Amino acid sequence: MKTLIKNIDIIAMDAQNHRYEGGVILYDDDTIEYVGVLSEIIDSGKVDLKQVKVIDGKGMLALPGFINAHTHIAMTAFRGYADNMPLWEWLSERIWPMEDRLKPEDAYWLSLLGAAEMISAGVTTFSDMYMFTNNIAQAVSDSGMRAVLSRGMIGPNEQMWQRFRDIEELAEWQNRAEGRISMMIGPHSVYTCSPEFLKTCRQLAEKYETGIHIHLSETARETADCVREYGYTPVKHLYELGFFDFPVTAAHCVHVTCDDMDLMAKHNVTAVHCPSSNMKLASGFAPVDEMLERGITVSLGTDGAASNNNLSILKEMSLAALIAKGYTGNPKALPAQTAVKMATNMSAKAVMLEDKIGSLEAGKKADIQLIDISCPHYYPKADPLVHLVYSGYSGDVNTVIINGRVVMQDRMLTTIDLNQVYREVDRIIKRIRY
Amino acid sequence: MKTLIKNIDIIAMDAQNHRYEGGVILYDDDTIEYVGVLSEIIDSGKVDLKQVKVIDGKGMLALPGFINAHTHIAMTAFRGYADNMPLWEWLSERIWPMEDRLKPEDAYWLSLLGAAEMISAGVTTFSDMYMFTNNIAQAVSDSGMRAVLSRGMIGPNEQMWQRFRDIEELAEWQNRAEGRISMMIGPHSVYTCSPEFLKTCRQLAEKYETGIHIHLSETARETADCVREYGYTPVKHLYELGFFDFPVTAAHCVHVTCDDMDLMAKHNVTAVHCPSSNMKLASGFAPVDEMLERGITVSLGTDGAASNNNLSILKEMSLAALIAKGYTGNPKALPAQTAVKMATNMSAKAVMLEDKIGSLEAGKKADIQLIDISCPHYYPKADPLVHLVYSGYSGDVNTVIINGRVVMQDRMLTTIDLNQVYREVDRIIKRIRY
Repeated sequence: MKTLIKNIDIIAMDAQNHRYEGGVILYDDDTIEYVGVLSEIIDSGKVDLKQVKVIDGKGMLALPGFINAHTHIAMTAFRGYADNMPLWEWLSERIWPMEDRLKPEDAYWLSLLGAAEMISAGVTTFSDMYMFTNNIAQAVSDSGMRAVLSRGMIGPNEQMWQRFRDIEELAEWQNRAEGRISMMIGPHSVYTCSPEFLKTCRQLAEKYETGIHIHLSETARETADCVREYGYTPVKHLYELGFFDFPVTAAHCVHVTCDDMDLMAKHNVTAVHCPSSNMKLASGFAPVDEMLERGITVSLGTDGAASNNNLSILKEMSLAALIAKGYTGNPKALPAQTAVKMATNMSAKAVMLEDKIGSLEAGKKADIQLIDISCPHYYPKADPLVHLVYSGYSGDVNTVIINGRVVMQDRMLTTIDLNQVYREVDRIIKRIRY
Repeated sequence: MKTLIKNIDIIAMDAQNHRYEGGVILYDDDTIEYVGVLSEIIDSGKVDLKQVKVIDGKGMLALPGFINAHTHIAMTAFRGYADNMPLWEWLSERIWPMEDRLKPEDAYWLSLLGAAEMISAGVTTFSDMYMFTNNIAQAVSDSGMRAVLSRGMIGPNEQMWQRFRDIEELAEWQNRAEGRISMMIGPHSVYTCSPEFLKTCRQLAEKYETGIHIHLSETARETADCVREYGYTPVKHLYELGFFDFPVTAAHCVHVTCDDMDLMAKHNVTAVHCPSSNMKLASGFAPVDEMLERGITVSLGTDGAASNNNLSILKEMSLAALIAKGYTGNPKALPAQTAVKMATNMSAKAVMLEDKIGSLEAGKKADIQLIDISCPHYYPKADPLVHLVYSGYSGDVNTVIINGRVVMQDRMLTTIDLNQVYREVDRIIKRIRY
């Protein structure tokens, strides 16, 4: 059955930058058929109003669902656990030892918790790098979210065969869950993967015909160590290893040189800006404005809840727009329109789904968020996109539709039993925290 | 009648840093009588449970209401209107010309809009600098908020007698609105007030036995111009004019030198950190961590909605904690506990109300916010203060009590008719925007 969202203000984020006040969105099953004005579809006979399900969007703004281009969803386990620490200490002394206690089935519940939070903040797709991809995929399937999963890999190590089995399993998930799951290859970083092992990952990308999702140039230490050990910056190092023959999504890119940025631009390497995590771990401020000026696609990611500590792209979007101005000293840096593009279009490219998501237009998947703009912080009426970026809160998201399915309505989740998730998470946390 | 909030997690933000799980807060009329555990007040006979109004706080966290130590409430008029501009251009080309069209009665409705937004985000007190103080005071009175109002002044100018009359009127408001209104003297800045006029303002502070609220060292240009014109930095300039014999609350303090900070610390000058506004206008990052280390009281402010663009202290608190780490490169800079102190205790001092508000303890005013911590971004359970700072959203605030009166319950405002405010604001905007 077709669904018609009516009386809705729309910012389509398509190439023509269409906007409508009191417009309509028509979708059939999982796919958008029309975005525009009611009279036009009635005249064209595209829709019989008696035969459609109607959602009244009065007082709300429709945007494409936000895309979280870099996270580690099951790390909700560690939210609020390890604060006030620099990246290396944080990883090696707190996160990794606790991760050793995680069981695969834990990842299912921890991912449902992350999915609940993301849906509540208007995030419809996330790109993940973690272990337990099979269990995470099950949570994606059950929650109704869309996801691009990468089996995070540190190597070489003795369990390599297991990683390859995980990846094989992940490949099979691409034929399940109504096509909401896709995959990338996830070598962790240049400081945790040897050049030989990185080449193996490159071959995996070739084998599975996909791209590579990697942490890159996150800290000054990573860059310095890489230069010392391999004679190149992390970006150049990957280039020399032949990585840039494949789509590469590089999370963080805080410590990139001008040459690095030129290489990234030339080879269409996509950056994922994670401002909260970079600030919280004191990694620094990424030169987002410079990357954008060079034509690099810069998407947005929350990173995991252990270092953010939340999974809201709306918050990262606001932060990105503010920090860029403070950091460059230029009040015109990263305007609101660009920030929203980063959270939608550019992130769609980063997760290799630009043909399916990232804008509201016919032919794209029905991944739609309806934002309540009747709250005081959206008044007086002005450009709603500006209000959203500089004044919006994550809790303003009222209704979320993914792949044509309503997963949150009036802020009530329809696919996830939160109380059950909380009970299971409590149980897991009791076991793994020390 | 007494009110008992029960089953509530409490972070009192008092000197002893009391915390309770499933605790109680008892208040009588406008004043807190007890914060602690139920059994203790029952045993002590402090309360007859049949004779009190009960609020069930299950699933919620009680904190002192946030204090917005620097705003211009009626500037909600300009939210989303003038973006992507540096401070001087923004003030002189957009804000001031439009302000000229504002009528006193407009300020009433624009302030109610700001009050609605602040209450919705858990802000119970604000310190304001603007024109139309009489109308703003009326909105404070009607909304139930607590406020410290300063008549913003640029001078000398020909309308000085009018400013003095406004201040006289403001002084009278201190005896009205159940004592929720107090006043400070508000010279705009060293770049808009002559030294002679600043001395007049100092005399006003003496006359009205209060402190001074001023913009200080906001931009590099302000500092450079002040040094060129007067031979001193803005901080030193005020010191030389004898300002620091009175309590001074200095908004922004972005471009302060080490000597400035030492002077501020020595003379108990309070800084108001406004991170969103400083970033949006590309003024820079204030050295908050350095100020705190020197013992300066650093409070938080949103600045006006024209440059922020919202009025949420929770958001400024999160930003402050993140930016300090990114800016200093130290992940231990400005921990969560300090950020919450800035938003409550330290801001209470900045607005000269530290005896009345800023913590939950017997004898203080009943200015209380109840935050819904049953959402996914507060799980797994950990230190709720850490979750609030790094993961909380402004929309999590569920119930707000000011001076013992419930002004928002389950996110419904009880003192402000939002639809009426929206209608009036629409009418005003239509007239003043060009």
